[in-house]
Amino acid sequence: MSTTFQQHVRKFITISDDELTAILSFFKTLAPARKANLLQEGAVCKQDYFVLKGCLRLFFIDDRGVERTTQFAIENWWISDYTSLLFQTPSEFYIQAVEKSEILAISGEDKEAMLAAHPKMERYLRLVHQRAHAATQYRIRYQWDFSKEELYLHFSRQFPEFVQRVPQHLLASYLGLTPEYLSELRARRIS
Amino acid sequence: MSTTFQQHVRKFITISDDELTAILSFFKTLAPARKANLLQEGAVCKQDYFVLKGCLRLFFIDDRGVERTTQFAIENWWISDYTSLLFQTPSEFYIQAVEKSEILAISGEDKEAMLAAHPKMERYLRLVHQRAHAATQYRIRYQWDFSKEELYLHFSRQFPEFVQRVPQHLLASYLGLTPEYLSELRARRIS
Repeated sequence: MSTTFQQHVRKFITISDDELTAILSFFKTLAPARKANLLQEGAVCKQDYFVLKGCLRLFFIDDRGVERTTQFAIENWWISDYTSLLFQTPSEFYIQAVEKSEILAISGEDKEAMLAAHPKMERYLRLVHQRAHAATQYRIRYQWDFSKEELYLHFSRQFPEFVQRVPQHLLASYLGLTPEYLSELRARRIS
Repeated sequence: MSTTFQQHVRKFITISDDELTAILSFFKTLAPARKANLLQEGAVCKQDYFVLKGCLRLFFIDDRGVERTTQFAIENWWISDYTSLLFQTPSEFYIQAVEKSEILAISGEDKEAMLAAHPKMERYLRLVHQRAHAATQYRIRYQWDFSKEELYLHFSRQFPEFVQRVPQHLLASYLGLTPEYLSELRARRIS
């Protein structure tokens, strides 16, 4: 199962099998069921998650009680509330499994211990966060600049498989559309 | 001048004066004038910037020709278009000096050479990107969830000095308000 993680680390750094095995000993493997919450709003985020299989999402519930998804994480993505994890403050987000998933979880303390023992992993995590930060810069731009329809078309072109895979009401909650408007857009593209 | 940078690095890692001097040799010091552009939309981003003094901003121009600021960087902040810098693709952003500034600039290649010679800096940059990524997670949440007035109040409470310092039309362009509505909100708070 954990070869997914090993391959991902090796995309970024050169590292031996033995060292990767030692690194994996700092993680727990979890298998959340579909819709299981790994973090609830108001709780302090204790873990950083790496998706081996399946899909997690980060979302909040707005004033009108509507769920708004701000991030998805499929295979090879990390996800957490990094503010809550770092400062140990209550989170304003939920993290939930979209599908039955297999994930690696590491606490803030265990991450620090792992990095102290395996400083090579600083580079791996630097590159991971740099890419995630890079992606959010454009996410903010597009959320502001694009019409809802443009946002959907852009996202469909960038991540065609993902658009097929994720439940449509969650995709709508990520794009800021009603599920009805999203199915109208999809129908229009197919016809 | 560069003690600002040295102090910032030492907030995150332990490092000798000699090693910091060697690290600084990979950077250029620039002094852009107010409104000087360091990056233009359509160009490939070549540098990562650290602000020693002054203020930079990342913005784009929307369909209607309106400038939209998505990020500011004051002293001790890094700023770049990390997608364009990493993949060497044309940027969809501008980077501009808001005030006459003093900044450190490092190219992608020089950053890699610096990190190869000084791997300790991987940890520093990992923590910097992790915090920036953390901040954008909440930026996306608030941009979506808050009314324009709530966004202004929240930002004023979080960064009171910054709100005083930055030109009001740029603050408006960051918060997605018209400059007129922003001055109305400010007047309402003062009265």
